[in-house]
Parts: sequence; C-alpha cells; structure tokens
Amino acid sequence: MKITVEIPNHKYNIHLKRGILQDVHKFIDLNRKVLIVTDDEIPEQYVMALQKQCPDSYLATIHAGEQSKCFIYLQFIWNALLDNGFGRKDLVIALGGGVTGDITGFAAATYMRGMDYVNIPTSTLSQIDSSIGGKTAINLGDVKNIVGAFHQPRAVFIDPDVLETLDDRNFYNGLAEAVKAGMIGDAALFELFEQMPGDRAVIQADYIEDIIEKALTVKKNIVEQDEQETGLRQVLNFGHTVGHAIESAGELAGLLHGEAIAVGMVQVTEDKAIKERLINVLTKLNLPTTHEYPAEQLKEIIAHDKKAAGSKITLIKVPQIGQAERVKLPLAAIDKYL
Amino acid sequence: MKITVEIPNHKYNIHLKRGILQDVHKFIDLNRKVLIVTDDEIPEQYVMALQKQCPDSYLATIHAGEQSKCFIYLQFIWNALLDNGFGRKDLVIALGGGVTGDITGFAAATYMRGMDYVNIPTSTLSQIDSSIGGKTAINLGDVKNIVGAFHQPRAVFIDPDVLETLDDRNFYNGLAEAVKAGMIGDAALFELFEQMPGDRAVIQADYIEDIIEKALTVKKNIVEQDEQETGLRQVLNFGHTVGHAIESAGELAGLLHGEAIAVGMVQVTEDKAIKERLINVLTKLNLPTTHEYPAEQLKEIIAHDKKAAGSKITLIKVPQIGQAERVKLPLAAIDKYL
Repeated sequence: MKITVEIPNHKYNIHLKRGILQDVHKFIDLNRKVLIVTDDEIPEQYVMALQKQCPDSYLATIHAGEQSKCFIYLQFIWNALLDNGFGRKDLVIALGGGVTGDITGFAAATYMRGMDYVNIPTSTLSQIDSSIGGKTAINLGDVKNIVGAFHQPRAVFIDPDVLETLDDRNFYNGLAEAVKAGMIGDAALFELFEQMPGDRAVIQADYIEDIIEKALTVKKNIVEQDEQETGLRQVLNFGHTVGHAIESAGELAGLLHGEAIAVGMVQVTEDKAIKERLINVLTKLNLPTTHEYPAEQLKEIIAHDKKAAGSKITLIKVPQIGQAERVKLPLAAIDKYL
Repeated sequence: MKITVEIPNHKYNIHLKRGILQDVHKFIDLNRKVLIVTDDEIPEQYVMALQKQCPDSYLATIHAGEQSKCFIYLQFIWNALLDNGFGRKDLVIALGGGVTGDITGFAAATYMRGMDYVNIPTSTLSQIDSSIGGKTAINLGDVKNIVGAFHQPRAVFIDPDVLETLDDRNFYNGLAEAVKAGMIGDAALFELFEQMPGDRAVIQADYIEDIIEKALTVKKNIVEQDEQETGLRQVLNFGHTVGHAIESAGELAGLLHGEAIAVGMVQVTEDKAIKERLINVLTKLNLPTTHEYPAEQLKEIIAHDKKAAGSKITLIKVPQIGQAERVKLPLAAIDKYL
C-alpha cells in the first residue's frame, strides 16, 4: 500500500509492502550515481538486494549505534559524495535504522545545498516513526539532534520482511512508538494492540503491516499540518520529556529509545483506567513500565535539555485514548510525573 | 532606503542607509540572546556599536580569510550557541564579509534545524553581492561552497559608512560584482560606472549608495524568481566560470574574488564594442582585465569544478549590456574563452 505525504513544496510516497526492497527501481530512478549509506549490523543480503538495482552505486558504511550520529560520520558521508563526483541530481539512499536515516538525511539536505534522498528503514522503530517527518539531524556532544535540517525524502520504502533479522528486544522496542501513535491519535490502533497476542511471530505474520500503516497515518496527518514543529507537532512528544530523561539517565547501559518512551508514557498518564490499559499493552509487548532512577536526577536532565527553551515545558497529555492536548507548565511542575 | 525581498515563505527587508549600524535595534528585536559572529579584522568600534544595542550578547570571532569557511569554525559557532543555551527563537548576527556571512548563515540554518539570522555585511563585495540571496555554505577541502543550505536572513543591514575602514584593493574588488549586475541586468547601472570618476573618495561620497541599491535590485529580481538556482539564477554566474578558475589558479598569492570575476567577464565577452566599454570601466576601478595563467591549467580546474555537473557547462553571455542569456556548451568549447 501507499501513503502519500503532502507538505508545502514536497509531496512523496511511502511504499509499504513485503518484499518492496527488491522493487525500489520501479518507483525511483536509480540510473544515476547512488550512494547507499548503511551500518555494519545490516545484513549483507539487504545491501546486495539494493546494489543489484543500481548500475552505478557506491557504499558508505557507518558503525551501528547512536554515537555514530556525529560530526565525523557527517564528514565521512559528505566526502563519499564529493570524492565520487556526486551532483545535485544524483541520489543518496539510507538503508538502516533511525541513526542512519537521520545522519544520511542531514548529509543529503546540505550537500550542494540539497540533493535527492530516499529512506529505507530496517528497524521497527524507524519503520514506524523516524522514517517519516523530514527531521534530519546529528548530535553535538551529549545533546541529541541539536544540529540538523528539515529535508523530506523523495520516497520511503518500508519492507516488513526485513524485520525478520532484528533481535526480539529491538523488535518490541519500535512498537512503543506505535502504541504512542494510538494513544495520541488513533483509538482503533490502540485497541488493536489490546486485542492481539504479544507473540512476536504472530505479530510479524498477521499484524505488523496494519500497525505500521496506522501509526504512520497518525504521524502523517500531524506532520502535514505542522512540518516545522511550531505547535501541533509537539503532540508527537507524548511520553518523550520524561522518556528522554530516563534514556539519558541510563546512558549506554540503560533503556532503548522505545523502552524509555514506554515508561515515559506511563509516568505522565494520570487517568487510572487509561493507565491500566496502557500498562497492559506495554507489558504484553515486553516493554518496561517503571524505572528506578531518582526523581532528582531526571529533573536535572530535563532542566539541562530544556535550558534552551526557557523555564517552561510543554507536556503532552492524553485525556482520552486517541486524543492529545498540549499543556504548558513551569519546569517545577514536572516533579509529579517523575 | 529599504529593499524588500519576497521569496516563497520568506519576506525580509534590506536596510541600506549610512549609519544604520547604530539603529539595528529599531528594526529587529534584540531583546533576546544574540550571538555576534565576526572576524579578527573587523574594527572593534563596529562590534561595540552592535553590542551596545544587545542586552544579552555573546561574541564569536573567527580568523579573517577564505580558509575559515571550514568545518572547524562551523563547529565553533554551533558550540558557541549550544554552550550559551541558545534556543530556536534567539538570534545570530553576522558582522563581516562574505566568509562570515556564509558560515554564520549555515550555522543558523542548521542549529536546532533553523534559527533567526541577521546579516550586516562590512565589505563592498558582501554589501553588493553575497549578503542577499540566501545561499549559505562552507568549503570542503579545496572545493568551495560544496556543503550548505538555502536560508534567508530575517533582515540585512547595509551601512556604507563602514566601508571607510576597508583598504583600497578590497574596496574596488567588491565593485566588480556591481559591474556584473549592470552587465547582466541594468544598463543604467553600467552607464553610471562609465560616467563617474574612478576616485575612491568621490565614489564613496557620491555614488556608493546608488551602486549598491541598483546592484541589489538586479540580484533581488533574479533570486525572487529562482531562489534555488534551478535555472534563471545561473545568470548571476556571468564571468564566474572562468573567473573561479583564475581565482583558484592563483591560490593565496592570486587575485581576490572580484578581481578574478573582472577578468572572467572580459574573457567571455565576444562583442568588440561591449568588451571595450567593459575594459574601460574595470580599468577605471583599478580592476584587472587580463591574466597570465596557461589555458591548459584553467581548463583542468574548470573540469575539476564541474565534474559533478557532468560534461556540459552553462556559460552566461551578455549579447547587449543589461541582458544575459544562458548557453549550454560541451566542456571542450570553453577553450576559446581562456
């Protein structure tokens, strides 16, 4: 199936289909120079499936992991483009998770002031969330996504079959963002999670396409109204203020992004009935619902993250499953959610 | 006087007036964090005139010169923003020549995916040309402007009084781009150059505002029609294909940008009468009209510069003063213009 995203001056398709990795050439002109950016944990068979379709392809492989979203690898990708004589009308393809997509998108946004870019996300997290929306970035020191650009891809190809090679923890990790999408914008998606079994094999065989489609549709509708996050788009941050703090607190030994967001959502949900339903779904998906960090530590991290935005924070609340609202709070008011 | 530039989603004013450096606060909200980026050759009095208007200002000083348009200084500016807790709604001001404007604009385009940016050009070259158009960039190795973004400033302030501290060579250097503007888009501007004396003091007292205004208006009209250089905007490159090669050939010991463009314009002008008029104007402005580099060397540089764009080059011709046309040529055809 195909989801079309329409943002002022940019219109592109998300192709969601099992096996679509073999068919990219049917939708995008690959008869030009193509740089494939991937990471060293992506199975070779996926890289080769893509290379086979590109008569003039180049490969740039980064190390897997968040620490690769840095300056050094940004330069590495720029130089791969420059050294191989890429022009504005050539193409860069990101084949990997969110890190690969973010840094590749930023390199494409800035090389020659903007060139074509295609995203092929390979993790549940990136298929469900980070492949759509046009936010590209790198980290600076320990500050995430502080430097970047809004740069929409020419197309996104989502092949649920490639999820087979993901380990269990990463498989479930990405589903947290789909649970979030249900919470803020699609009660039916949330109910789907309530009805289905938690078994990975069953989810992958029978539910995953539906989950991805529904989650992307929630995000698409929000991003189309507010590409550059001046207002509405903030609702996508449900669970993220506290979640990011939990993620930072644990550093490398801690939780994955989706896992931290799972806990963050539970922490900010006040309605008892909603909270219970949320915990049930997350538990079924092997996602954590509590954390062990002192409130003081989390508060310090939030204060540090937010110093740039002044003393107020925007918290996203879900008064009813499928609906979100934005509440501006003084930083001190975060205490009760930690 | 005020020139308004209107580009899709961006509208901003260029304020052109003697002494306007003292009055920036009347047009732009400076009651927020302000990072002033400048270079170490800008007289302190200009920096202080600006600081006086900003209750919460920070200073980042880069070394003067083209070699500062690099990765290291880009990081330096990003870190100055991050370390001082700048947010999306704070402000960066570039106070300097083209190098300062280009790298500062790029840092502003990418910090938090885009923040407010004001340009205060202090050289004839940047006042006449590089302060308008929204092209921001850095160099990568020896390749100029290969990485960057289109990012329009909130406002541009042009104060002809600050030109007083420029040395003669740099003063005349910038006028070459105004001669170019006359050649491609404003016969009256070109005729103004023919009528006026070459004496710097007279130009500065009686002509400079008129020259800047006319040159900016030519550029504004072109940029408004083609912000991202997909077609028409290429006419601004009149004299630049050969000029850039001459500039590169000389490296640090060679010609300044405007000087090289002066020679480049002469080289590509075929009509005898136009060529004579052009040489007369450039000579009056102390600008060179010939070069001493072997054609083979220039051709190699052009081939290297253009490798990304394929084997064709777009040459800009001026069939009549005030009019430009674009001609696509195979690379080999450049020989006769070297």
